[in-house]
Amino acid sequence: MNAPARVLVSGTGLIGTSVALALRGKGTEVFLSDADPATAKLAADLGAGVLVPDLRDAKGIADIAVLAMPPALVGRELAFVQECAVADVYTDVASVKVLPARQARELGCDLESFVPGHPLAGREKHGPGAAQSDLFLGRTWALCPLPETSADAVSAVTALAAGCGADPVVTDPETHDRWVALVSHAPHLVAAAMAARLAPSGVPADALKLAGGGLRDVTRIAAGDSALWTQILSANAGPVAEVVAAVAEDLAAVARLLARQPQGTPGAGTGVAAVTVLLDRGRAGTSRIPGKHGGQPRNFTVVQVVIADQPGELSRLFTAAGAAGVNIEDVRLEHSPGLPVGVAELSVRPDQAGTLLDAMEAGGWPVRR
Amino acid sequence: MNAPARVLVSGTGLIGTSVALALRGKGTEVFLSDADPATAKLAADLGAGVLVPDLRDAKGIADIAVLAMPPALVGRELAFVQECAVADVYTDVASVKVLPARQARELGCDLESFVPGHPLAGREKHGPGAAQSDLFLGRTWALCPLPETSADAVSAVTALAAGCGADPVVTDPETHDRWVALVSHAPHLVAAAMAARLAPSGVPADALKLAGGGLRDVTRIAAGDSALWTQILSANAGPVAEVVAAVAEDLAAVARLLARQPQGTPGAGTGVAAVTVLLDRGRAGTSRIPGKHGGQPRNFTVVQVVIADQPGELSRLFTAAGAAGVNIEDVRLEHSPGLPVGVAELSVRPDQAGTLLDAMEAGGWPVRR
Repeated sequence: MNAPARVLVSGTGLIGTSVALALRGKGTEVFLSDADPATAKLAADLGAGVLVPDLRDAKGIADIAVLAMPPALVGRELAFVQECAVADVYTDVASVKVLPARQARELGCDLESFVPGHPLAGREKHGPGAAQSDLFLGRTWALCPLPETSADAVSAVTALAAGCGADPVVTDPETHDRWVALVSHAPHLVAAAMAARLAPSGVPADALKLAGGGLRDVTRIAAGDSALWTQILSANAGPVAEVVAAVAEDLAAVARLLARQPQGTPGAGTGVAAVTVLLDRGRAGTSRIPGKHGGQPRNFTVVQVVIADQPGELSRLFTAAGAAGVNIEDVRLEHSPGLPVGVAELSVRPDQAGTLLDAMEAGGWPVRR
Repeated sequence: MNAPARVLVSGTGLIGTSVALALRGKGTEVFLSDADPATAKLAADLGAGVLVPDLRDAKGIADIAVLAMPPALVGRELAFVQECAVADVYTDVASVKVLPARQARELGCDLESFVPGHPLAGREKHGPGAAQSDLFLGRTWALCPLPETSADAVSAVTALAAGCGADPVVTDPETHDRWVALVSHAPHLVAAAMAARLAPSGVPADALKLAGGGLRDVTRIAAGDSALWTQILSANAGPVAEVVAAVAEDLAAVARLLARQPQGTPGAGTGVAAVTVLLDRGRAGTSRIPGKHGGQPRNFTVVQVVIADQPGELSRLFTAAGAAGVNIEDVRLEHSPGLPVGVAELSVRPDQAGTLLDAMEAGGWPVRR
């Protein structure tokens, strides 16, 4: 499966320009267009491809046209570029799929040549200046063909996604939108609702001193841009509402049961059994989230090491681990509020934990076995 | 404020033995007792202190007695050790405070000498073998005096907490329990309720391929032990129920508004404004969570570096950072499912970001500015 020979990227923001850069690296001839000429020029200056000043003069210029713009703009752009006949196959990269597919249908676009797509990659920065040729490396790229979409079109876009280094997964727009509601959009709202409880009124700063890493983890994504997330959530409103309503219902039920629990009888009562059931379901859910390298979640052993908070300390640590031939699969620093020490939690393959512990001890670190 | 001269630790599990080890390091004479003689002996063998076979023969043995056992057992043990008159001052380390304080009162304990306490530290392992002298280093240690508690008793336990390297924070039992409900217990349930949506029925494995780091963060703590967390949640049922009910209500309200949102009109409608309000409250909440070194949350600049997933790679990276005099405040590895590369996100002080980027580039890493 070779990367396509000629690709037009319409919309040279972060995603579009990253697609262009990735494909250029594979020898693809790339053409660039953007509603904002300065944005397109910046992408071209970055080496992403050749400018196309007017798509109406670009008939047959590409094998595939990639429409890289917000969901609500995809339908109209598809109608336009198909009218210009710029390519044989068309795809988009918007983060929801039902909305653009429906608009394309309503606008009478040719659906046989259209493969709705969504690369699961992004950055906090925007614009062509933030683009990276390796943005899609190892990421999932969802392809959501419509009933009308031809098999040849799907093959072509699959090759494009693979050419960008991504892992193509085929589904349909409705399923895609339910999936991203579940694994991305609803979790954002849940994190925000928990974090909203920490807002200043009624919660003194001392309360937050009792917070640990758990709270930070749960609420981290709630720090994201509210306006951007409002757009995302409302463009996938139905599926998000379904997941969030179910979460709210589970939480409300547990809250009712706990409220009835007599304060002095921990562990007793029927309400408590229901709490355990929800916690067990939660454990089952977390175990399904793919770990590093995708596929089956892998179990790593966590080795804890106390480290001084000074330049070079992590360097010494990782040098010792590397010298012992141990690959650190993940690392987290546990913060020690108030004191200049921390605990590094190093995840390694279980069969390497002993080697790492020995190496750390030999290096003089207080190791926690 | 000196560490106490003589301390009795009753209950030589993880926390009790860690207190003993920490105080021994400060020159405190430590005595050990446990309902299970083998557990007490193991703690003594680990150098945590001197065994006291029978507390009835230990009148006046200590300045402070530390009761390190589950919340529901504290009241009875306090009544017993006060009857034996083993110490002048008493404290406990249980993770909720209203329940043991009430039981102590009901059992007619002397409350003038009792300072309910809670060190915010723990590990996933249990027992004296998992104990660490540095477990409390830089952690918050809540002290929750009752109306009857004497100022001298509070001073003594404050010195004990400080002697363990912790940061003492004084409040009262009711406030403490509301605070931990907010920053620890409720977030656990919220994470579990989100993760429960990922359980196998109806969610194919492909859906999880669309998951990113956000979902992993939100649900991480839901992997904890269900039985243990059921105990914790039911021992603090009222305050937990209050927070969880409020979160559920916010989520249900947003779900209702989103469900009414016409699918084709992203960004429009009054429901959307309410979503933004919740997201904004969430952002305000996350900004209050203390960062490293406690106190005011600090803003770090995140520098992204693409790294190969092989032994020694992180070592080279941190060596380069250390050589440039840059202190890495936090590090996260972004997983790349399916491919042996990753992105290291290094948090540094904003004024050091440029230096780090230069050092990374000089070292040959593809840097993301």
